[in-house]
Amino acid sequence: MTAVLTPDELEEKLRTHAKQYHSEHPFHQRMNEGQSSPEEIRGWVANRFYYQENIPRKDGAVLSSCPDREVRRRWVQRIIDHDGTTEGTGGIESWLRLGEAVGLSREEVEDSRHLLPGVRFAVDAYVTFTRTKPWVEAVASSLTELFAPNLMAQRLAAFERYYTWIDPAGLAYFRSRLTQAPRDSEHGLEVVRKHCITPETQAAAVAALSFKCDVLWSMLDSIDQAYGPR
Amino acid sequence: MTAVLTPDELEEKLRTHAKQYHSEHPFHQRMNEGQSSPEEIRGWVANRFYYQENIPRKDGAVLSSCPDREVRRRWVQRIIDHDGTTEGTGGIESWLRLGEAVGLSREEVEDSRHLLPGVRFAVDAYVTFTRTKPWVEAVASSLTELFAPNLMAQRLAAFERYYTWIDPAGLAYFRSRLTQAPRDSEHGLEVVRKHCITPETQAAAVAALSFKCDVLWSMLDSIDQAYGPR
Repeated sequence: MTAVLTPDELEEKLRTHAKQYHSEHPFHQRMNEGQSSPEEIRGWVANRFYYQENIPRKDGAVLSSCPDREVRRRWVQRIIDHDGTTEGTGGIESWLRLGEAVGLSREEVEDSRHLLPGVRFAVDAYVTFTRTKPWVEAVASSLTELFAPNLMAQRLAAFERYYTWIDPAGLAYFRSRLTQAPRDSEHGLEVVRKHCITPETQAAAVAALSFKCDVLWSMLDSIDQAYGPR
Repeated sequence: MTAVLTPDELEEKLRTHAKQYHSEHPFHQRMNEGQSSPEEIRGWVANRFYYQENIPRKDGAVLSSCPDREVRRRWVQRIIDHDGTTEGTGGIESWLRLGEAVGLSREEVEDSRHLLPGVRFAVDAYVTFTRTKPWVEAVASSLTELFAPNLMAQRLAAFERYYTWIDPAGLAYFRSRLTQAPRDSEHGLEVVRKHCITPETQAAAVAALSFKCDVLWSMLDSIDQAYGPR
């Protein structure tokens, strides 16, 4: 029988998953060291769009299963951040502009012509997870955001240093996540710390975060296979 | 084989469901004629809360299944309207205040102690519908809002005339729906007119609206059985 953890112990355990985060994937390691080819960057941007595009759908699933109005009031901001409030705003739009900055037309990003099966399967698995699991587990799965700001900061530095062929204006998405991700992960942590107070729910929260790390890692495996060096 | 309808013909066909709307239910007819007892009003307010409370959850389901950013940008407003943006705001809060105005404590409304099984089943069927059906059908099921403003206007008049024991400040929810419902139904109609352009999808939209009318009607059947005159 597993003992129940204090909220701080649970948080600490969740944070150990940083080493399972996709920042450790060889594809991202190479990217951050300036070794990615334009083809790799483009393949990654085009495929990662499918993830970006599905974020509001997984957040809609959280709203749909969450019975707590106060949580929903804060969670809905994620959808607004990604969809924007008017044409030409929001995180999905920023990602399309990143696509243009790396030399992809909006059309070829939006129509998924470059989307790899493995990336589709991983993203779909994530959306399905948020639709079918208890809402607190769906929240826990979002906690990869704990690790995102470090990766974003590294990536911004790498792009400005090594990938000077990319217009820095195209990097607005990464910049916006520097502030959004900490705000979001703080809320997610608050929910998990409050609701996961039995060994079972704590184990489920850790499993949800591990699952989400697998989703991100698996996407990079497919992208690395398709576009990486042989 | 059924012929395809023009958007105007489809809209006209949808609008004929006004006669299936719960404004025609004996319970609402009596309420609007001033014949409801305080017990009936209280039973209705307490039970209808379960519907109010679930609105953001069905709207989250629509966001989760809708692939169109522009639709989501407008649809998310429904969630904000119902949940509010801060403690003490939003449509669900307004309904709790209606509860207080008719003599129900917030606690007894929020803890569902008065909730009738038939009302729960009907509301749950609605949420399940929006989670499992194609998103355009979920949108079509919201079109009972086409008929809501008439009922709201009648109800406001009836409450102010016949139910003078209820503080008119408690009727804010109905007032807010006088403007929200037309805005929402206009958007819903726009989506259905645009996307339902085959006999199959048009029949599905009509069936979705009919189903939703059944949900509202069935709730009143249960409420009428429990609290209405014998």
